Amino acid sequence: MIEQYPVITLDSDAFEASRLIAEQRLAGLVVTDESGHPSFVLGSSQVVRFMLPTYVQDDPSLAGVIDERLADHAADNLSGTPVRNLLPHDSEELAVVDADATVLEVATTMGRTNRPLVAVVDGGEMGGVITASRLLELALAGAEG
Amino acid sequence: MIEQYPVITLDSDAFEASRLIAEQRLAGLVVTDESGHPSFVLGSSQVVRFMLPTYVQDDPSLAGVIDERLADHAADNLSGTPVRNLLPHDSEELAVVDADATVLEVATTMGRTNRPLVAVVDGGEMGGVITASRLLELALAGAEG
Repeated sequence: MIEQYPVITLDSDAFEASRLIAEQRLAGLVVTDESGHPSFVLGSSQVVRFMLPTYVQDDPSLAGVIDERLADHAADNLSGTPVRNLLPHDSEELAVVDADATVLEVATTMGRTNRPLVAVVDGGEMGGVITASRLLELALAGAEG
Repeated sequence: MIEQYPVITLDSDAFEASRLIAEQRLAGLVVTDESGHPSFVLGSSQVVRFMLPTYVQDDPSLAGVIDERLADHAADNLSGTPVRNLLPHDSEELAVVDADATVLEVATTMGRTNRPLVAVVDGGEMGGVITASRLLELALAGAEG
């Protein structure tokens, strides 16, 4: 059930992290700390937020009245900026499961954290990820069998 | 920027809806009402929630102690159940944009609703979806150009 997936660190360049999602059409990314343990599990919509100018994050209604190219902000805000500077401040439950978690536990963590992927940790090390579509595939295959 | 994407209705079978995501590795699904207008935009993690037994949704800690196959629940709960019965009750902002929305407006809606896709409505009709990875691709291509 576990898939290998690109992993970024807190010090990774935010532009490169965004490009990983775009080029490989990823559901999201796992961000690891210095010891290789997952610090954040980000869905792709959270990475889209990286690109938003601060004034739009503060007041979304401004998105419709200010004529500014998102691409300009992506270039200015992301390039050369470490991912750690753009991460959400609120400490949410981490979308992480142990390698011996059951399918039901994985699905529960995914549903509760509302992430399209969960990181799998095996003895403190990143073992890969499980995506929502893969989990659904497995559960439905079992349901038909 | 707009992609064609499978659309389901409130009366669609939940098992078939889940299978669409699994087989086509979709980021999520748009659920339309009788008039063809989007009623819900669901990320794949929300469709994973469809499969969770009620007792786990009420008390997630039970996922670790009850030895039950998710596949059995998927078969029992999803097959023959219309999607409308499984949708979240809280009325959140709909991840929908007009066909003339700017890239910045699409990104803002995506970030605010925390969905990996937004539905695009053109004159009241579903015009397709924009996924987070596609939006990132466009924004980054512009940033490099």
